Amino acid sequence: MSSETNNNATAVSAAEGVEEDESKNPSSTGTTISKKAAKKEQMKLEKKKRQEEAAAASAAAALASAELESDPLSGNYGDIPIHELQSKEVTQRKWNEIGSLDENLKDKEVLIRGRVQTIRPVSKTIAFLVLRQKGFTVQCVVTAAPELVSKQMVKYASSLNKESIVDVYGIVSKPNEPIKAATQQVEVQVSRLYCINRAIEKLPINFEDAIRSEAEIEAAALENKQLARVNRDTRLDYRVLDIRTPAKQGIFRIQCQVENIFRNFLISKGFVGIHTPKLIAGSSEGGSAVFKLDYKGQPACLAQSPQLHKQIAICGDFNRVFEVGHVFRAEDSYTHRHLCEFIGLDVEMEINEHYSEVMKIVDELFVAIFDGLNENCKKELEAVGKQFPFEPLKYLRETLVLTFKEGVQMLQEAGVEIGFEDDLNTESEKKLGQLVLEKYGTEFYILHRYPLKVRPFYTMSCYDDPTYSNSFDVFIRGTI
Amino acid sequence: MSSETNNNATAVSAAEGVEEDESKNPSSTGTTISKKAAKKEQMKLEKKKRQEEAAAASAAAALASAELESDPLSGNYGDIPIHELQSKEVTQRKWNEIGSLDENLKDKEVLIRGRVQTIRPVSKTIAFLVLRQKGFTVQCVVTAAPELVSKQMVKYASSLNKESIVDVYGIVSKPNEPIKAATQQVEVQVSRLYCINRAIEKLPINFEDAIRSEAEIEAAALENKQLARVNRDTRLDYRVLDIRTPAKQGIFRIQCQVENIFRNFLISKGFVGIHTPKLIAGSSEGGSAVFKLDYKGQPACLAQSPQLHKQIAICGDFNRVFEVGHVFRAEDSYTHRHLCEFIGLDVEMEINEHYSEVMKIVDELFVAIFDGLNENCKKELEAVGKQFPFEPLKYLRETLVLTFKEGVQMLQEAGVEIGFEDDLNTESEKKLGQLVLEKYGTEFYILHRYPLKVRPFYTMSCYDDPTYSNSFDVFIRGTI
Repeated sequence: MSSETNNNATAVSAAEGVEEDESKNPSSTGTTISKKAAKKEQMKLEKKKRQEEAAAASAAAALASAELESDPLSGNYGDIPIHELQSKEVTQRKWNEIGSLDENLKDKEVLIRGRVQTIRPVSKTIAFLVLRQKGFTVQCVVTAAPELVSKQMVKYASSLNKESIVDVYGIVSKPNEPIKAATQQVEVQVSRLYCINRAIEKLPINFEDAIRSEAEIEAAALENKQLARVNRDTRLDYRVLDIRTPAKQGIFRIQCQVENIFRNFLISKGFVGIHTPKLIAGSSEGGSAVFKLDYKGQPACLAQSPQLHKQIAICGDFNRVFEVGHVFRAEDSYTHRHLCEFIGLDVEMEINEHYSEVMKIVDELFVAIFDGLNENCKKELEAVGKQFPFEPLKYLRETLVLTFKEGVQMLQEAGVEIGFEDDLNTESEKKLGQLVLEKYGTEFYILHRYPLKVRPFYTMSCYDDPTYSNSFDVFIRGTI
Repeated sequence: MSSETNNNATAVSAAEGVEEDESKNPSSTGTTISKKAAKKEQMKLEKKKRQEEAAAASAAAALASAELESDPLSGNYGDIPIHELQSKEVTQRKWNEIGSLDENLKDKEVLIRGRVQTIRPVSKTIAFLVLRQKGFTVQCVVTAAPELVSKQMVKYASSLNKESIVDVYGIVSKPNEPIKAATQQVEVQVSRLYCINRAIEKLPINFEDAIRSEAEIEAAALENKQLARVNRDTRLDYRVLDIRTPAKQGIFRIQCQVENIFRNFLISKGFVGIHTPKLIAGSSEGGSAVFKLDYKGQPACLAQSPQLHKQIAICGDFNRVFEVGHVFRAEDSYTHRHLCEFIGLDVEMEINEHYSEVMKIVDELFVAIFDGLNENCKKELEAVGKQFPFEPLKYLRETLVLTFKEGVQMLQEAGVEIGFEDDLNTESEKKLGQLVLEKYGTEFYILHRYPLKVRPFYTMSCYDDPTYSNSFDVFIRGTI
């Protein structure tokens, strides 16, 4: 049960980096398909192993239930059989949220439901369980006491498998020492303990391994200690376990918040949310590769962009529209800018007289998202940062807007060889980001008036200089 | 320019019904692909025609501009050339929204931008224009007056093509009579008139034809008058014109509201919005046909349902999740229940002890959506109802919940031959909807405890009777 014996998690791969793409694409399809063939045999073996483990677990449960019979307090604990969970009746039971457990509940009885994150049997008369629910954890103490808690119950608690779901009835107490093992600073003195859903004994991913940061692993390696690293392929194979970790929970919840802020901000500015077709007759953009499929005998494509349909909506008098939806691109490149499937946050709007109207909306939108995340997602950002450390984004109350020319000048002054009509490559974008940060103290800025020749054919040229165009890009940390 | 001469719109098709599916699927791809081949030749001819029309329009514009030169007041009107629209400068001009024009602005100068919906030249000295913006319309009067408005300007106004976009400067006035031709009850006495974007002279769909209800057409037919009916294929071919009509604008805005209410309600109940993969390795449900595609040499499918991934999220400790996203089903049936591409509103949640917890959420969710639409979409519902008449939905503050058995009993008492373990067919569903409406006065209700054998294999049986199952369906107007 210790993390060191876990076969799946101990393989160390140099290629495994910080999962920075995770926040952009919740899809795991790409990786699993491409590695499928090679893994088939291994999977088969693992399946057999799991079956054996499940059998062992149920044997253990049977043994446990045999012991119960000899215990007069056996009604206070045990595995709940499935037919008792079958929507039997609507009781008046109220479950307390683990995240809500605090000193105010001292000496009160609570009922909580959570996953067993850790199990620490101290002796035959005492065992500690840490229960987790929605990212919050609480320490539960099972102490043998005459007429209340039997030794068999302590043994039962110690025999639970990690990640099992249990119902715990107990009294809230406040220890003198701060509790390091859990988020909640109270304990629950367990009086009754029921397992609602028993996990198999050995899970392919250990929770404590899955939450470990790369820095922790590397620091241990320096002391010649090898800590388990859960690789991305293992995480994707057992996604259901991987997404229980606080960092992943945080990433998904932050994604949801980004969408909320995006929608609410745009709706407040008169935008209408639309959903455009994804099965289309032709490719939506010339540049990127397209997934083709058979549509009832006719050739069809998956939309690479909602561009055309957004524009139909604008010409159709919707004035301002946005879409949050799937985008499909049959990309052959493996960079964090190339994804086969992702969720696009798209905006399209009428211009009254100047493209700066669009820049203003986009600028305010980003600032609203940054502000909103800092305000509403403190816990989630902290959880992500714990596993994947990052610095808070530096951005100004009044967003910096530079012309392309000004940007190139800054690069030239810094010794970069670049002409006023050249496009920025990834390197010069990063360099400019660094220069802007040094000079203006922001990692978020807008660059506009790009050279016409580096933009798509449909871009409008500038009124006063046909070399440049009515266009802009938004930079965060040196990347578009 | 009259609606009767419009070739595309006059064909009458018996198959064309009320567009009831519109609200479920904004996609038009299906229809356009399947009719494409047959139409190619026609399209070619139309394209040529359009080119000729465009040439004629620009000739007319040239003629108009020649006339301008002889008019000392020519600066007050005319087509704005493209380079003047090229994000020239950021002025301090403020456009008034047409929807905001009312008596409070009497005698004030306003600047409005809108589409020319109708043009009525009364004489050489007076012309009426109705301008439309965001579903609101206002009557603008161009009256020749010495030193202010030339006769050439009246002629220019009369020469505009419908659906052109114009900027109008003018003084707001309040006529004694109510204005029938427009939503706003004030007029604008035009002092300056500029065309920002001139539409071609003859559009494939006339706005007044496109907004006509079936009832209007049928009533006219009884009097031997044939009014133009714009068929669905024409609407889909020229979607950009079709969606300018108030009913279509309303449908899209209602859709957006449904999504808003859905999201906000669920978020308030602790749900997290997720987006699940649509490119998957196998089919997501056994029942419905699947679109297959090549994924870099591997077979892949488009997801028919987010079911599996929602369940992964629940087992992954998200507790409660929802998704608003694309669903793809290679359906061969042509009913309003079968769509190849639609936006699914999906919900998945943990149950504490009874499936009635889910019923309660779903019940409250629907009521929140009905309430929200009635409250926030009055104008949109009215616009839809004007073209596609419907009765407001009857629903109770406390939703009616019936067991399947109770439903069958009601049907049996009404003489329908149905057993307690039979599934409801479309006919009996409708009949039950009618009986429920008569008895309980609601068109929205929930039926639960379906026979186990008519539900999918994974459905849990009832604790007290294995013939029935922990399942339910929501009925609106007799359909699931």
